[in-house]
Amino acid sequence: MRNIKLIIEYDGTNYFGWQTQKLKSKNSIRNTLYAIRKFSTIQETLESALRQILQEKISLIGSGRTDSGVHALGQVVNFKTKSRLSVVDIKRALNAVLPQDISVVKTEEAQDNFHARFDAKSKIYRYTLLNNPARSVMLRNYYYFYPHRLNINAMRKAAKLLLGKKDFKSFQASGKKPRSSKRTINKLSIKRQGNFIQFDIQSNGFLYKMVRSIVGTLLEVGRGKLNPAEIQRILSQKNRKFAGPTAPAQGLTLIKVIY
Amino acid sequence: MRNIKLIIEYDGTNYFGWQTQKLKSKNSIRNTLYAIRKFSTIQETLESALRQILQEKISLIGSGRTDSGVHALGQVVNFKTKSRLSVVDIKRALNAVLPQDISVVKTEEAQDNFHARFDAKSKIYRYTLLNNPARSVMLRNYYYFYPHRLNINAMRKAAKLLLGKKDFKSFQASGKKPRSSKRTINKLSIKRQGNFIQFDIQSNGFLYKMVRSIVGTLLEVGRGKLNPAEIQRILSQKNRKFAGPTAPAQGLTLIKVIY
Repeated sequence: MRNIKLIIEYDGTNYFGWQTQKLKSKNSIRNTLYAIRKFSTIQETLESALRQILQEKISLIGSGRTDSGVHALGQVVNFKTKSRLSVVDIKRALNAVLPQDISVVKTEEAQDNFHARFDAKSKIYRYTLLNNPARSVMLRNYYYFYPHRLNINAMRKAAKLLLGKKDFKSFQASGKKPRSSKRTINKLSIKRQGNFIQFDIQSNGFLYKMVRSIVGTLLEVGRGKLNPAEIQRILSQKNRKFAGPTAPAQGLTLIKVIY
Repeated sequence: MRNIKLIIEYDGTNYFGWQTQKLKSKNSIRNTLYAIRKFSTIQETLESALRQILQEKISLIGSGRTDSGVHALGQVVNFKTKSRLSVVDIKRALNAVLPQDISVVKTEEAQDNFHARFDAKSKIYRYTLLNNPARSVMLRNYYYFYPHRLNINAMRKAAKLLLGKKDFKSFQASGKKPRSSKRTINKLSIKRQGNFIQFDIQSNGFLYKMVRSIVGTLLEVGRGKLNPAEIQRILSQKNRKFAGPTAPAQGLTLIKVIY
């Protein structure tokens, strides 16, 4: 069996996130839409395109999930196949079959034991804001519209306190929780260019909604509702309720997975 | 009656263009979608928001139509109303009621006889290309993806031949035709920034699909399929079939209406 690695770009606006869903009875509108294929997941859409091209049932392994509305410029996935189709032809065929909001950037042969999730050393996410008094219709799905004045220096001070190996329990949304909530943030930069603000976060792993919880908390600092030093207290409280709100999905993009 | 002028921004992706449609039996899928309100027009959406806010039936006059998928950053419209609501309140209420892909940028009191269509002296449209080997999922609704190499200087030479008062019959799509197809193009600039190419066209009026026909023809020049000088011949032939293909809607944005 060959092991093929793909780098994928997608606009998450019209998808229920990366991962194939188990229908829960809880959320019936969502489930109905899902059931009638009004919305799908990125994984399902890709698997069905691959099945069509390779005439084989394909199980994709993604580097990790992205939530509904979250985008990717560098999602990495791998799959096993018996097909003899060249990687160039797989890429061409996928891009011909996939909808316009998913695109394959790169295809390559991976080593037999390469695993997109387990082998990921770190990931880089970018969160983008439109920090302007007026909203923009064209950017609405890719930027969080945030009209309030922000103190970037205060946010940078707060961001520094999140660097290194910490317990990020206070920045983890409820849901399926991993054994440990300790993660290492290697980089957390905040850049302003005109009315755009960009947060780049690199870590060896991210808890559920961790980036969006961090951004939401840093925005509270930027508005002056929280003192930068209070990040320390929030971390030590190890309880999600002490951090700021979760920033919305559309501002978030998975930029790169590092192996 | 007050006469109110609005400047509107919209993402045309999910609309059947600006103008309220008459259902034709010709195109039944489109009509079905339209009938079940899966898609609407910008005009209808705005009129219904105004009716809700002003408790009055409102007839909007737009500076001109934009086609399905075409965007606007500076569409101008006006309407008469008996309401005493301030222009600031009208703007606030509209932006609260309108969907996220339509936004009111400015509201003001206009003179009694101001007419958004008849008083327009000229308009500026922008057409944007992604001139890159790989498509971009995030830009797909706002840029025409055009992977071929382009000779910008040849395109600029051709563009010069379109300046001034000319008969643009060869760049007019079939449909309802005005008495005269003579128009004056005051400006036609082509700029490249990295992988992005931007055409800005200003004219005292545009024929049906004129900008997209001009861009499609200039792209044929850029690829070397047409000689710049052949623009002269195409103009004099006064027949749409001699010009290049119509560039797709998503690259086009109405930037400004000048009064």
